[in-house]
Amino acid sequence: MFLKNSWYMAAWDHELIDGKMLPRTILEEPVLLYKGDSGKVVALEDRCCHRGVPLHLGRREGDCVRCMYHGLKFDATGKCIQIPGQEVIPPKLGVKNYPIVERDHVVWIWMGDPAKADPADIIDFPCLRDPQWKGVPDYLHYDANWLLIVDNLSDFAHLAFVHTNTLGGSEEYAYVTKPVAIERLPNGFRVERWHKDAAPPPFHRKVLPAAEKERHVDRRNIGSMFVPGIFFLQTMFSPAGSGSENGNREGSRQYSNVQFMTPETRSSTHFFWTYLNDFEGDDHNISRSLHQSLIEGFMEDKHLIEAQQKVLDADPSFKMLAVAADAALSHFRWTFDKMVAAERAADAADKAPGKIATTIPIKAPHQAGQNA
Amino acid sequence: MFLKNSWYMAAWDHELIDGKMLPRTILEEPVLLYKGDSGKVVALEDRCCHRGVPLHLGRREGDCVRCMYHGLKFDATGKCIQIPGQEVIPPKLGVKNYPIVERDHVVWIWMGDPAKADPADIIDFPCLRDPQWKGVPDYLHYDANWLLIVDNLSDFAHLAFVHTNTLGGSEEYAYVTKPVAIERLPNGFRVERWHKDAAPPPFHRKVLPAAEKERHVDRRNIGSMFVPGIFFLQTMFSPAGSGSENGNREGSRQYSNVQFMTPETRSSTHFFWTYLNDFEGDDHNISRSLHQSLIEGFMEDKHLIEAQQKVLDADPSFKMLAVAADAALSHFRWTFDKMVAAERAADAADKAPGKIATTIPIKAPHQAGQNA
Amino acid sequence: MFLKNSWYMAAWDHELIDGKMLPRTILEEPVLLYKGDSGKVVALEDRCCHRGVPLHLGRREGDCVRCMYHGLKFDATGKCIQIPGQEVIPPKLGVKNYPIVERDHVVWIWMGDPAKADPADIIDFPCLRDPQWKGVPDYLHYDANWLLIVDNLSDFAHLAFVHTNTLGGSEEYAYVTKPVAIERLPNGFRVERWHKDAAPPPFHRKVLPAAEKERHVDRRNIGSMFVPGIFFLQTMFSPAGSGSENGNREGSRQYSNVQFMTPETRSSTHFFWTYLNDFEGDDHNISRSLHQSLIEGFMEDKHLIEAQQKVLDADPSFKMLAVAADAALSHFRWTFDKMVAAERAADAADKAPGKIATTIPIKAPHQAGQNA
Repeated sequence: MFLKNSWYMAAWDHELIDGKMLPRTILEEPVLLYKGDSGKVVALEDRCCHRGVPLHLGRREGDCVRCMYHGLKFDATGKCIQIPGQEVIPPKLGVKNYPIVERDHVVWIWMGDPAKADPADIIDFPCLRDPQWKGVPDYLHYDANWLLIVDNLSDFAHLAFVHTNTLGGSEEYAYVTKPVAIERLPNGFRVERWHKDAAPPPFHRKVLPAAEKERHVDRRNIGSMFVPGIFFLQTMFSPAGSGSENGNREGSRQYSNVQFMTPETRSSTHFFWTYLNDFEGDDHNISRSLHQSLIEGFMEDKHLIEAQQKVLDADPSFKMLAVAADAALSHFRWTFDKMVAAERAADAADKAPGKIATTIPIKAPHQAGQNA
Repeated sequence: MFLKNSWYMAAWDHELIDGKMLPRTILEEPVLLYKGDSGKVVALEDRCCHRGVPLHLGRREGDCVRCMYHGLKFDATGKCIQIPGQEVIPPKLGVKNYPIVERDHVVWIWMGDPAKADPADIIDFPCLRDPQWKGVPDYLHYDANWLLIVDNLSDFAHLAFVHTNTLGGSEEYAYVTKPVAIERLPNGFRVERWHKDAAPPPFHRKVLPAAEKERHVDRRNIGSMFVPGIFFLQTMFSPAGSGSENGNREGSRQYSNVQFMTPETRSSTHFFWTYLNDFEGDDHNISRSLHQSLIEGFMEDKHLIEAQQKVLDADPSFKMLAVAADAALSHFRWTFDKMVAAERAADAADKAPGKIATTIPIKAPHQAGQNA
Repeated sequence: MFLKNSWYMAAWDHELIDGKMLPRTILEEPVLLYKGDSGKVVALEDRCCHRGVPLHLGRREGDCVRCMYHGLKFDATGKCIQIPGQEVIPPKLGVKNYPIVERDHVVWIWMGDPAKADPADIIDFPCLRDPQWKGVPDYLHYDANWLLIVDNLSDFAHLAFVHTNTLGGSEEYAYVTKPVAIERLPNGFRVERWHKDAAPPPFHRKVLPAAEKERHVDRRNIGSMFVPGIFFLQTMFSPAGSGSENGNREGSRQYSNVQFMTPETRSSTHFFWTYLNDFEGDDHNISRSLHQSLIEGFMEDKHLIEAQQKVLDADPSFKMLAVAADAALSHFRWTFDKMVAAERAADAADKAPGKIATTIPIKAPHQAGQNA
């Protein structure tokens, strides 16, 4: 069901400020996250190995955590290093530790075999550290499987119907446009769509100077989706007919939308996102307006997707029927299922007697959106 | 568990006024009901065949409905007739359509094989269209299996204990009366009970002229219960000793109580009801008072029946023990179980290779209560 | 899972005052408790044998109860003695009756084979009837298996960490103390611990005269735990160095803490408790303060234990790892499991064809804490 050998976004680093103990279920495992006194983020199983009490009800001590039921203390690797009133500590006493990488305000966690965790596999988003790009990082909780959110983001067709008054364009356009070509990647897909000579969509219109609000624009969207559920949308608005499709950037405004879908359980999702712009300068009001617009749009999706989850739960025998616009999400699910199957086969091979362990490396592009 | 080849009440027609989209689960299937611009009621599977989003979150267009996720449009038969951005529509794309009959403000739905749906099987209630009979149609939701409500209505014994202060008569009477004779019908039963020379029960007393409130009455109840769960109670109050049992109707007042129990799920029920009187004339206050009295009475039942459902859920091994007063409900359950078994056998026969499909027609009386 | 042939606390007798009908699920069985007009407590299956309606929705009549659905009446033994409108009552009509013993304000119920119920097996707590001992009996509901509460009470190690500011002593002490010796009993265990020359813990300090608040004390705890889940804690505070370990009682103050854990379901518990003191005299304020302090302390436990239950529910494959301080609870669980296994084996033998029924008597000490 889940891909274990993969990096997942576990938190924004501001969620861990000042040593806060953050319990968060990831892939149905209880995880405790905190930043120790050393400044390093620690991720441990959120369950004392002694009697099962959650460690987030305990007390952080330096980079360690102490269970406040009977006082067992665990270091940053999960090893039990103190039992009050007991001198010898059996070596098997400890909790699971998860590899962590902090980069550009994102806390990444590795949920599978620690021996296979390679930070080089983490997708790089330069816009997350480039001071030119401004935005407000945020979080939403979905009562839905993360793949339903991936599906949602995998086609632009829903923009016209779900987001007519927020993020979308005109509904009429949906009837004349064709599904875009899908660039199939080994770990996801990339799609590009141009929507030319149209009124600016509501979210963009709000932040335009008064003189530009009525001017038509050419809109280019490049969307990339990566396993296990990371979405990157690069949007450019240029003056209609300015030739931006030929490389002219004059008068253009750009957005970078990064979204991370991390499964909490098979039917709920941690949704991390930030919507960045490259034209705001030092006025935070544009970021704030875009943040509001995006939340409005996400709520439209969330309402539909959570209703969809309930329908699927009510009748597991229901089979979806594909339409042409599903090419991207179908490729993604096919790719994802293949990776899960490979992971299971590798696990089985590792456990087989007399076999030499093998791993199937899944390499992600080191830098996303370089061709934008 | 459910009888599929049967007409069920799906809604009062006033629930669908002005094109309202009404989602309603019936026999554990999600159904969308609406009245199209043509004035015809449409019932479709409330689940887009594409990604499973509920169609009631969509938009009605004439007699059609459009899913507002990716814009697929379905006509009144459930056929998909438009996919934005796609020219060819695969013929298998569509949602289930349910046969509907509108009659006397009741919207009937057929949940089984459409080929077997015969409007002539619908039980006729002339009082629902006769302007002499007045009342307020209403709806209650029960967290209980519909057969527990059928049970409740199948004996008059509970009136004395549950409804002493609302619909019932005196508790003392319960100890001296005998269970009534059951007229066994192929699709239910009919019982008749006389309760003579007693004070009028509270609900009736309230609507009597002051001069009659203290006068004793002879009360005649004729109750009929039909598969799958339709109850018809014809009540007559006559002056005590006036000889109404011999046909004298002078000074009598009559009530017609129609109740439709439609399973929502195996443990919840749509309960449609109207309590009609033939003596109100143009003063709606009598209807309003009776409506209030009946709700009071139903709440007494609902409290017990929903508690009963919880007890049964908590221990499925519990076996009920019958008393003499259970003759009617026992016959009903036996009849119902026989029909479900026949339906399953017919389904199996239809599916068997080389067999000719057969149907077992279940004919209901075309007009209920003619003999009242 | 449960030990059936055992006495459980069902209620405090003040809960049944004035004929109140008390529904209470015990070992996952629905039980109705009430005090009849004779003054005797009756415990019946809370489920009418006719249609399953809860009898607590009925009406008490003397020592009998009448179901208010169809009027069946049951006597104090559970036998059906009246069916309105029916002369012959089939002998099998009735509900289960549970043996009850009332003693010292505790209502004891026997959940197993009535033939094996022997009041002599009930543990005696003289302090519950001795007017020297004062306190406020109370009740808490836990969303946790009762054995998790038994575990909690089975070691003193948690006092330092969970109850530092309420019932506990200093945290530092936990690191130097050693687990106490366990006296293994056939139906539980007994532990004794001395904590010498320390500041009085907060709950005790609050009720001390001003002059004594700063004086160090020697604290002696004797804890006994009995199957199925009865805890008795005898606490003595003496002036530090006064030689109370050698029998000197001068200046001592004592507490008797009795707690009864009765399983409601496998994951919820009725927790009855009273915290008695022997030094209050006629001023109820000391009892009231101790009652408040104990509730504060119990809430600290409840918070942890209910979180622990959720962790265990979320992953039934989780295996706890023992530490040295678990000796007492490990013995208790081993003892309890052995008794359940013996009960099952006896049941199977009773049911085997041609076998003579045998019972395995489980004798409890007739008086707890005599050696304190």
